[in-house]
Amino acid sequence: MNSNTFQDQPGQEHSYRSGSLSATDVSVREQAVTHNIDCIEIGKALGSEALTVWVGDGSNFPGQQDFTRSFDRYLDSTASIYAALPDSWRMLLEHKMFEPAFYSTVISDWGSSLMAAQELGPKAQCLVDLGHHAPNVNIEQIVARLHRVGKLGGFHFNDSKYGDDDLDSGSINPHQLFLIFNELAEAQERSPETFNPAYMIDQSHNVTDPIESLLSSAEAIVSAFAKAALIDREALHAAQEANDPMLAFQALRAAYRVDVSPLVAMVRLEAGGAIDWLSAYRQSAWRERKARERKPVSLGAGIV
Amino acid sequence: MNSNTFQDQPGQEHSYRSGSLSATDVSVREQAVTHNIDCIEIGKALGSEALTVWVGDGSNFPGQQDFTRSFDRYLDSTASIYAALPDSWRMLLEHKMFEPAFYSTVISDWGSSLMAAQELGPKAQCLVDLGHHAPNVNIEQIVARLHRVGKLGGFHFNDSKYGDDDLDSGSINPHQLFLIFNELAEAQERSPETFNPAYMIDQSHNVTDPIESLLSSAEAIVSAFAKAALIDREALHAAQEANDPMLAFQALRAAYRVDVSPLVAMVRLEAGGAIDWLSAYRQSAWRERKARERKPVSLGAGIV
Amino acid sequence: MNSNTFQDQPGQEHSYRSGSLSATDVSVREQAVTHNIDCIEIGKALGSEALTVWVGDGSNFPGQQDFTRSFDRYLDSTASIYAALPDSWRMLLEHKMFEPAFYSTVISDWGSSLMAAQELGPKAQCLVDLGHHAPNVNIEQIVARLHRVGKLGGFHFNDSKYGDDDLDSGSINPHQLFLIFNELAEAQERSPETFNPAYMIDQSHNVTDPIESLLSSAEAIVSAFAKAALIDREALHAAQEANDPMLAFQALRAAYRVDVSPLVAMVRLEAGGAIDWLSAYRQSAWRERKARERKPVSLGAGIV
Amino acid sequence: MNSNTFQDQPGQEHSYRSGSLSATDVSVREQAVTHNIDCIEIGKALGSEALTVWVGDGSNFPGQQDFTRSFDRYLDSTASIYAALPDSWRMLLEHKMFEPAFYSTVISDWGSSLMAAQELGPKAQCLVDLGHHAPNVNIEQIVARLHRVGKLGGFHFNDSKYGDDDLDSGSINPHQLFLIFNELAEAQERSPETFNPAYMIDQSHNVTDPIESLLSSAEAIVSAFAKAALIDREALHAAQEANDPMLAFQALRAAYRVDVSPLVAMVRLEAGGAIDWLSAYRQSAWRERKARERKPVSLGAGIV
Repeated sequence: MNSNTFQDQPGQEHSYRSGSLSATDVSVREQAVTHNIDCIEIGKALGSEALTVWVGDGSNFPGQQDFTRSFDRYLDSTASIYAALPDSWRMLLEHKMFEPAFYSTVISDWGSSLMAAQELGPKAQCLVDLGHHAPNVNIEQIVARLHRVGKLGGFHFNDSKYGDDDLDSGSINPHQLFLIFNELAEAQERSPETFNPAYMIDQSHNVTDPIESLLSSAEAIVSAFAKAALIDREALHAAQEANDPMLAFQALRAAYRVDVSPLVAMVRLEAGGAIDWLSAYRQSAWRERKARERKPVSLGAGIV
Repeated sequence: MNSNTFQDQPGQEHSYRSGSLSATDVSVREQAVTHNIDCIEIGKALGSEALTVWVGDGSNFPGQQDFTRSFDRYLDSTASIYAALPDSWRMLLEHKMFEPAFYSTVISDWGSSLMAAQELGPKAQCLVDLGHHAPNVNIEQIVARLHRVGKLGGFHFNDSKYGDDDLDSGSINPHQLFLIFNELAEAQERSPETFNPAYMIDQSHNVTDPIESLLSSAEAIVSAFAKAALIDREALHAAQEANDPMLAFQALRAAYRVDVSPLVAMVRLEAGGAIDWLSAYRQSAWRERKARERKPVSLGAGIV
Repeated sequence: MNSNTFQDQPGQEHSYRSGSLSATDVSVREQAVTHNIDCIEIGKALGSEALTVWVGDGSNFPGQQDFTRSFDRYLDSTASIYAALPDSWRMLLEHKMFEPAFYSTVISDWGSSLMAAQELGPKAQCLVDLGHHAPNVNIEQIVARLHRVGKLGGFHFNDSKYGDDDLDSGSINPHQLFLIFNELAEAQERSPETFNPAYMIDQSHNVTDPIESLLSSAEAIVSAFAKAALIDREALHAAQEANDPMLAFQALRAAYRVDVSPLVAMVRLEAGGAIDWLSAYRQSAWRERKARERKPVSLGAGIV
Repeated sequence: MNSNTFQDQPGQEHSYRSGSLSATDVSVREQAVTHNIDCIEIGKALGSEALTVWVGDGSNFPGQQDFTRSFDRYLDSTASIYAALPDSWRMLLEHKMFEPAFYSTVISDWGSSLMAAQELGPKAQCLVDLGHHAPNVNIEQIVARLHRVGKLGGFHFNDSKYGDDDLDSGSINPHQLFLIFNELAEAQERSPETFNPAYMIDQSHNVTDPIESLLSSAEAIVSAFAKAALIDREALHAAQEANDPMLAFQALRAAYRVDVSPLVAMVRLEAGGAIDWLSAYRQSAWRERKARERKPVSLGAGIV
């Protein structure tokens, strides 16, 4: 369940133009909190067990916002949501460097996200969207850092070259995706009982059929997972301990090099899917058929 | 007192080629810990009250280093140093995105630095070097975040356009320096009793007389401080509360716009300095005189 | 006159989803060319003397587009527009690193823009939008490079911290704006007869009254111009020739430091404007009055 | 033959502290030109047919250098070198965004490099070092742009995550290397007679045996070449023409996915090399043997 309070909703009393969960106006904050609690209720009905909280709150001008008071208000609001969260649920805090705010954002990086998750309590964890970081940042190390303190909540998978580009997972930098899954394999080995990140795809498909992009992304993600599973982890750790960077690197590279597509295709087939997903999907004419079947639907107000 | 363990020292038994405080080899770690404790002893003799810990530890290859085990070893080593630290001292942890390691560094960002400082205890705080961040990062917000949890330990002032360029403070982006001092003014107002960051200049002067660069940097830093002190903070806060970004921004801009150089020059004069530091320094021929006076000095091994 | 062919227009036969001036489909390219020629005609009626050409053409996937064929098609289309351009007009080619395309854009940087302007002919020049560059890029040097070969066509002024943020000019990095105007002052001194860049503000005002943002931006731009005019250019050049970086830098800094706001305010007053533009504008209640007066207007199709 | 004039050489009359080929002092420029011409002479004796010109010239302070006069002096100097270049040779101009200069560099990007190569003449071409670009830049498109105008001279292969990290080729982003080779395959198909870039590895090996790093890099480069050769170029072009981004992308991805290591190993074996280069090299104990054999060598002054 996602509870974005960035875009104003029809029928909503207050605007989020000056912020939502961190707004100076208490009525705006209350509206945003209520919106999140409504989302929890809907999520219960749907069988969801996590609430992702991302806010577009931030500033476009130096001075526009007091960094500390904004953060305090954000924490005050999220604490109210946290209190309404069932014990079995997780609250996933999503950070983002910029956009829609272009000078500062309240939860801009994993440091701010971690700080908030720590203050909120054990149900609060951090969500890593691959496109929400500063240029050049080592995301796989952030994954390891968050897992180390039990705060790795989950992922928004996508790929990017410049900013929050929301391109298809693995289309720009499949090696980075592999390195992230290597950290997930490490994390699982280290904490088999508690390791349980939530995996989501969060992309924007502007030039492709979205179903095709999702199929392509799923294959990229599953392939990264399969390659990470192929790493000779014992050899890797031995090389790390022996300070042999070349052997350690080759342990990773040997797995990355493998063409796992036959394996992944076979798993897909056994699960009832297609060997050649693109041809199968195009031949099925599924999209055209669904487009004909689809009837206009009236959406309830306020649900994102 | 700085205790860099990046460069190997003459007479030193173990090399730091595979890391220092986070090395896999316990003898290397012990040597690095001892080096830091030696620095504390020297610092006591010199009247120092803080130990800055920066390590070049990291990796050049994916897989070379286990991110979590490296961090654990770093914490284990720093805990030993922390235990040897006098109660009145602070331990300043310095993060750096890259260099000399080019794929990952153990303390790469403020999130890792904060995590380490939190685990070590109240004497451990974070040191912000202005050139050690990813491109585009909002450093002034990091300053506010660290202060909020009592972990803003101090600064290495310098300026940069690309990476850890170590250029003269305020020479590339004087407005950013002003915004950082605005946060310091906020922090001081908020916590007048505890606010006490350590200010250092950490620059590399390749094309200028270092004394001139230090004079120029001091003027830039003091000017940023003076401009931040000129901000009508009441008007700023009122505009922030009223969600009036233009008024809030103009409150900052009105102060930034002021030419504080006469004020700063007068303060300098009253402190026994020169109005026109550059002319005064050049006319004094101080550097040439000192160069003639200087005798070779034998340095004790192991002191950085 | 701007002729963006990014967004599809009502009543338009072909979509620009797969590109406009560089599209593989000749009918799409022809439509985009015709749209530009229509813009020239409208511009003639309005007394315009320049056509700015920016295209959103690019790709979201490696392989989606052949870089060379796309560029050739772009040049073929722009050559047709160029042929329809009056001799007294200029064609301003605008580059942009990313967005709306997120893997590649046809005119992504000043190198591509220059290459196109050179092939098109003397009426074609390059337009520099301050927010369309890669992180850390030295924009003022690009300005100098383009002027050197007679291809500096003009500017889209704005400011940014992360990407094409379109924030108010000078709000994030006023010193960079000053350095750009320093290059313009150099260029004017070097080529007084031909120096004639087109100045435009291209910003997006999401949290302020757009009129206030324009007033604030105008002041920032004019102040940068005034400070650049104050530089002791003779002293600057002498220091450059003498390889005295500190003196050269101080020549710039001495001018940057000056509070030119009284001067700029006086010029504004003499031109019939207000000393304190923000108070005057707010007291005038101009915006509220105009909002009451405004009647719905029917826009002709296809005009951007 | 490389002719770096960055570091001062023993026995050299003038220092390059204030620049070399672009220095204000004509004697310094003449020394740097002579040094390059000496390199050409040595190159002739060695059978070289290309001179790579990289200069560290630039500035650390705004104002330190006049961008245009520096560039003019650089061109004046390189024109003298160009005149001494045999007709069969190429002059490869290498750009670099920053370091050792940290505010500006004379040949900072491919735009400046192209501008210089165009003014010098047909023997001058541009050299692309993979680590010398701004963050996020699309290097494969630059390769295509330079080839389009006959100015793609060659490469310095390496990999990087942050700046000019000089890591092992393909170790950080093997997919980018593949995309670059895809452009080279396109270029070769388009201009089979003239396509002839110079390939060099330019890396810095700090934590590995340099021979191992070179072997690893060679395998990464050859693998990228092999994968690019496997692309169904006809299908790729058809998908591009049909505006089918998913099919076009999958045409690239199908080739990237292939494990070419058996093929590359077989080619290596047939050329007299080893299937498993790392084991073979380590078992050979070549490095230890050579270290024992090596005698001190006296190098002639001034040769880089």
